[in-house]
Amino acid sequence: MKGEKSLFTRIIEGEIPSFKIYENEYVYSFLDINPASYGHTLVVPKEPASSLHELSPESASELGIALAKISKSILEVTGVNSYNVIQNNGSEAGQTVFHVHFHIIPKYPHSTHQLTWDSVKLGSEDASELARKISMGIV
Amino acid sequence: MKGEKSLFTRIIEGEIPSFKIYENEYVYSFLDINPASYGHTLVVPKEPASSLHELSPESASELGIALAKISKSILEVTGVNSYNVIQNNGSEAGQTVFHVHFHIIPKYPHSTHQLTWDSVKLGSEDASELARKISMGIV
Repeated sequence: MKGEKSLFTRIIEGEIPSFKIYENEYVYSFLDINPASYGHTLVVPKEPASSLHELSPESASELGIALAKISKSILEVTGVNSYNVIQNNGSEAGQTVFHVHFHIIPKYPHSTHQLTWDSVKLGSEDASELARKISMGIV
Repeated sequence: MKGEKSLFTRIIEGEIPSFKIYENEYVYSFLDINPASYGHTLVVPKEPASSLHELSPESASELGIALAKISKSILEVTGVNSYNVIQNNGSEAGQTVFHVHFHIIPKYPHSTHQLTWDSVKLGSEDASELARKISMGIV
């Protein structure tokens, strides 16, 4: 796929139509064509990175701002108070389009989407070492 | 709860201990005490907003940047390539601590966390009107 445009780049460039919600220099947002619920929206950086950790700080910053303000409008229009924001990276994590995208999914009483997990135990000695290692790797 | 400090504000202020990973003027990050998988990390704005849409642009921007760089370090330390980013707003959406927090959850072959939904149909006439309304509400 290297060198090929992602589905979302083709949408951003207007080659494939979308129900556009928002666009600025860094970000493009549109309705998910297979929504989990009414108002399910995708927020995508124009930068064609596959995963979140590969994004430039400029794109990451603009995504954060766009997520907050688009969510606000979705709540006002749909009338819901609850919503989930989900972003998957890598096929093992359920990513199917390899261009960063955040889902904003309004939660209605009848919504079927579920986010579940069993927690594992965090041993405090190991946790301390793990936190130290992750902390040291942040640049 | 108005006026009371959230659990995460108490963690940020050091009143409750945490396995800290990152901190700057706007953001605080630490290991989730009930991890879905090894390396499960929370990224929290210092601004004590309950939901994402209530955040200031400054906090939202800094959260975006922090999510990208903390994810990068988590991948390097844990050795996984896949991860999910999840952020729940409102009790109906599964939020339990009413202070904005993003989960970064590494996905291992044995991970049990699941993000599933049945999609509903997006009617194209309705979708056009919905997109227009959400778009007009963005300020």
